[in-house]
Amino acid sequence: MNEANPFKTADALRPKSKFRPLAVNQVEVGGFFGPHVDVIATTTAKLLFDRCIEARMLEQVDPDVPNPGIVIPFDHGNTVTTQMFWDSDFGKSIETAAYALYRRRDAELEARVDAVIDAYGRLQAEDGYLNSWYQRIQPGQRWTNLRDRHELYNAGHLIEGAIAYYHATGKRKFLDIMCRYADCIDRTFGRGDGRKRGYPGHPELELALVKLGRVTGEQPYLDLAKYFIDERGQAPLYFEVEAEARGETPDDFHFGTLEYCQAHKPVRAQREVVGHAVRAAYLYAGMADVATEFSDDSLDPALEALWAHLTEKNLYATGGFGPSKANEGLTFDYDLPNQTAYAETCAAVALVFWSSRMLGREPDARFADVMERALYNGALSGISRDGTRFFYDNPLESYGAHHRWRWHRCPCCPPNISRLVASIGTYFYGVAEDELALHLYCENTAEIDMAGARVALRQETQYPRDGQITVTLTPETPVEFTLSLRVPGWAKGFAVSVNGETLAASPEKGYLRIRRQWSAGDTVKLDLAMEAEMLYANPKVAPDQGRTAILRGPLVYCVEETDNNAPLNAYVVKDGASIRVADIDDLPETVGLAIEAIAESQPDDALYVTTPPRRAPVTLKAIPYYLWDNRAPGEMLVWLRREA
Amino acid sequence: MNEANPFKTADALRPKSKFRPLAVNQVEVGGFFGPHVDVIATTTAKLLFDRCIEARMLEQVDPDVPNPGIVIPFDHGNTVTTQMFWDSDFGKSIETAAYALYRRRDAELEARVDAVIDAYGRLQAEDGYLNSWYQRIQPGQRWTNLRDRHELYNAGHLIEGAIAYYHATGKRKFLDIMCRYADCIDRTFGRGDGRKRGYPGHPELELALVKLGRVTGEQPYLDLAKYFIDERGQAPLYFEVEAEARGETPDDFHFGTLEYCQAHKPVRAQREVVGHAVRAAYLYAGMADVATEFSDDSLDPALEALWAHLTEKNLYATGGFGPSKANEGLTFDYDLPNQTAYAETCAAVALVFWSSRMLGREPDARFADVMERALYNGALSGISRDGTRFFYDNPLESYGAHHRWRWHRCPCCPPNISRLVASIGTYFYGVAEDELALHLYCENTAEIDMAGARVALRQETQYPRDGQITVTLTPETPVEFTLSLRVPGWAKGFAVSVNGETLAASPEKGYLRIRRQWSAGDTVKLDLAMEAEMLYANPKVAPDQGRTAILRGPLVYCVEETDNNAPLNAYVVKDGASIRVADIDDLPETVGLAIEAIAESQPDDALYVTTPPRRAPVTLKAIPYYLWDNRAPGEMLVWLRREA
Repeated sequence: MNEANPFKTADALRPKSKFRPLAVNQVEVGGFFGPHVDVIATTTAKLLFDRCIEARMLEQVDPDVPNPGIVIPFDHGNTVTTQMFWDSDFGKSIETAAYALYRRRDAELEARVDAVIDAYGRLQAEDGYLNSWYQRIQPGQRWTNLRDRHELYNAGHLIEGAIAYYHATGKRKFLDIMCRYADCIDRTFGRGDGRKRGYPGHPELELALVKLGRVTGEQPYLDLAKYFIDERGQAPLYFEVEAEARGETPDDFHFGTLEYCQAHKPVRAQREVVGHAVRAAYLYAGMADVATEFSDDSLDPALEALWAHLTEKNLYATGGFGPSKANEGLTFDYDLPNQTAYAETCAAVALVFWSSRMLGREPDARFADVMERALYNGALSGISRDGTRFFYDNPLESYGAHHRWRWHRCPCCPPNISRLVASIGTYFYGVAEDELALHLYCENTAEIDMAGARVALRQETQYPRDGQITVTLTPETPVEFTLSLRVPGWAKGFAVSVNGETLAASPEKGYLRIRRQWSAGDTVKLDLAMEAEMLYANPKVAPDQGRTAILRGPLVYCVEETDNNAPLNAYVVKDGASIRVADIDDLPETVGLAIEAIAESQPDDALYVTTPPRRAPVTLKAIPYYLWDNRAPGEMLVWLRREA
Repeated sequence: MNEANPFKTADALRPKSKFRPLAVNQVEVGGFFGPHVDVIATTTAKLLFDRCIEARMLEQVDPDVPNPGIVIPFDHGNTVTTQMFWDSDFGKSIETAAYALYRRRDAELEARVDAVIDAYGRLQAEDGYLNSWYQRIQPGQRWTNLRDRHELYNAGHLIEGAIAYYHATGKRKFLDIMCRYADCIDRTFGRGDGRKRGYPGHPELELALVKLGRVTGEQPYLDLAKYFIDERGQAPLYFEVEAEARGETPDDFHFGTLEYCQAHKPVRAQREVVGHAVRAAYLYAGMADVATEFSDDSLDPALEALWAHLTEKNLYATGGFGPSKANEGLTFDYDLPNQTAYAETCAAVALVFWSSRMLGREPDARFADVMERALYNGALSGISRDGTRFFYDNPLESYGAHHRWRWHRCPCCPPNISRLVASIGTYFYGVAEDELALHLYCENTAEIDMAGARVALRQETQYPRDGQITVTLTPETPVEFTLSLRVPGWAKGFAVSVNGETLAASPEKGYLRIRRQWSAGDTVKLDLAMEAEMLYANPKVAPDQGRTAILRGPLVYCVEETDNNAPLNAYVVKDGASIRVADIDDLPETVGLAIEAIAESQPDDALYVTTPPRRAPVTLKAIPYYLWDNRAPGEMLVWLRREA
């Protein structure tokens, strides 16, 4: 691996890619996301380590301490352990800590991470293999159950953690460990003689290998990612071969069908989003990465069909998806129940990953709109305001019993939403040879190499409080490139000016593409019309009929019992009702809404009556969905009742 | 046991009881229920035997054939057997066959039942014990797990089958077998020295013992029923003691809490309906029976509170209850989801049992109204028109995938709804010393002993097609007693006349009580105002808000896709909409409804839009809920969208 600036190294592979994100430390985030990043840096990053260690994860990793054996977390009649995934939890926690260290140096946190890395260093086998479950709890069973045991998934998260930590600290130790493990995986899997034709049961390693290839400039890592994508679902099905080798009948698979892990057919033949939601979006993100890195258009029909299937038939208004707890995933088209929505935090995070990678070849607001929707709503809801509690599932309606967890039996979501938030700046921009795309709007400054010149960029905006964005560009020297500004799908109108002069531009695929020679101090102003509006669901979405969701800009709103008397289903909003911006006293950072509505009531408390309810006018107070369950517990509702 | 007429024998215990039902063969059922009884008699009774035997149940019972071992029915990755309940399935099937034989002699069916009875005779142990699971599959473990294994429950159903078969055929063999087993149970359980202080994990035996006491005139069976009621939930909790004796920790109970089987506290201290729905209603039915038989008022506060808790907070409009699949039972108050409603057929059947037994001490329309609602809707839906297919769970909304089963892994419902329908005449009347209560209206003739005189009674009515009922009484000699006619809670008005003379009577507890000397040919006419009406649910029932259910008389209506274009949630009914009676071509036996409504549509197929749906007038066709899924498959909806 090249020891020079990893970004320079990564540039060696650039021609194969079009748009790449900036590194986390290239973007100084303020505005809306600034305080969120600060909470992760000051609170959550450390808390993740505390809770991982409290859950006995380090004991499993460290070969110098006694093996903890099988650990049943939070045992109340539950006899399932999730510890074969523990390496992934540490990987994501290290990744989060790395981003936190960018934001705010913290010697104590760094020392704690170093201690975990040292333990992994001691654990690593001679041949590079590294998996605390198979090395300490089930020795001798390495590579025997890729389908169920997250072995390659764990590797992916540790690799992502190692890359982030290398960027944050310049320390190579963990990256070197993980390159050795990646080399071991490369020697084990592939089409060559004596290699196993396997691939991850839970996709994720594909994304990590693309990152590793970009950072190290090592083509074999990219090739290995491509192999995993290409091989998945080919006949004979590896997970069936592997099950038989274990002496099992493939039909005994707990989840019935390999659709669960999207390994039922080759990825290029897949047209419908099926199975476990997080697995699905990680796989499609990997496919998009490979399509970008290898300019592989043969993946496009699958990616386009999968995207359409998800966004046109299976996506919650919040950007969450996967309605069912049983498979943590998809069921049938238009099955979007609200109260029982699973909509795992990790699935919304994974959708941000997939969406952002769909932007790899060109700016297209179809992808950025969904990325923004999932980010601000279904993903961000996964962590409390103070950064200490987490949602695993994200229903759109609660009767009062759904609350964030201090920790989870399967703690995948807390570090996942944390690493996303802590690295949020990397999703703001897409950088190609001579085009800079602004995907997300948020107060920030960035340093970008454009067409050979270093450009300082500043976004000034209160977004999403309002839709006014001022972008100031300060190139070292005047430089020509295309600046592409996203006009979100929700914007009913926009105005754009350069240095005060209005531009009569119309968006291509949702982006205003402004090509010119940019000089220091050039200013672009974009004004997006941001008004609250009522959303209606397709008649095939049964639970949303007779209901409306309120949106304003990227935010989906909800009503909570703490602001409005329960039951919340007693309220009705007329189509075209007045909706005004309103302060919420105990959530001063946000834009609340006041909604004119009707309150229905029943004179007595009978279970069923034959006279229609009484009606009276009422003003509802709504808050952004992601902020729910941060104050007094109670009911919550996104899809309000409506009438014509 | 007295060999004379069992009804005369039962009369020996009469003073302790107030109102008792007629025996099945005292009522000749026609009208609405006549064809339903005929379908059971000609088709279902035999089919139950076919399927029990196909499921290998007889192999388990018959000691002369090889033991089938553990049988996993309909195995697709499922590793649970239900065969420890098989005796109950045979018991209910024999009971159904017995009622079928009343209706229509059938030598072949009788011979098949005799063969099963003979097998039980060969199986019975020296001491009377009789349980095919513990005698053939788990020998040596008798009485070690009353909580989970349905040992006493099975005994109850076999006893009920034996009583019905004795009534139907006059053959005593099965009754004698079951008396010997009941005597064995009596020697085993109770408060005496060396007896176990146990009681059924799944209540049911209590009901059977009351029946057995009434039939045989043997007080010990009634006393044993009372012991099971009195002992349940007393400290120390028997199911905990028993679990410890098995070497288990009581906390390891799969269902977490003994609320699941209503054994968490003494029954007289219970105030809320909790746990498994069928267990609950069977227990409360047994409590009501004991309260009646022993004039035990100390059970009243519990029974009244439990009744209120169920009917005021936890009952579906269809008379189904128990919303959750996880515990086949109750969750929290007002939790009445429609699409995921479990509402097991057996629970509605059990509610008919409980309701009918709440009428044991006096006519009270609170109980009869619920009995009628559960019977015509949530229970009757459990069997197809042709008597060959069965619902286990009864949702109030289906997206098209819910259909009746040919058989079920846990086949408790098919024989349960069948025995209820085949014995329906026994629920029509309540007979006390000098009062005859008419609880249900249906064309029929009955022979009743009233105040020492034999009275022939005829109901002429098209009920529930309309609300006109003519009752003609023909006593052998003139006799004075009170005739009590129920005025259902749904009736907005009524008129009553005796021999053409209008009576200015007002109901007491929902019954018109007419006391006079009745002579041959006396005619009472009751005219109940039966109009379609819209039902509204309490604002606390979240899924029903903005919705209405349509009722007419005892029937709850639904719309089906086969009569109305899907999606059914696109339709809106205005409060006060016109609802007319209308024929349904392919369901000529029923009264359909034509409902004026609005159809909403969306111009394109987008998942979410920001313009309200288009609207157009439409006429919906509705059918009685119990008839759904008898024609083309598709969506079904009870709670229609409504607007003011």
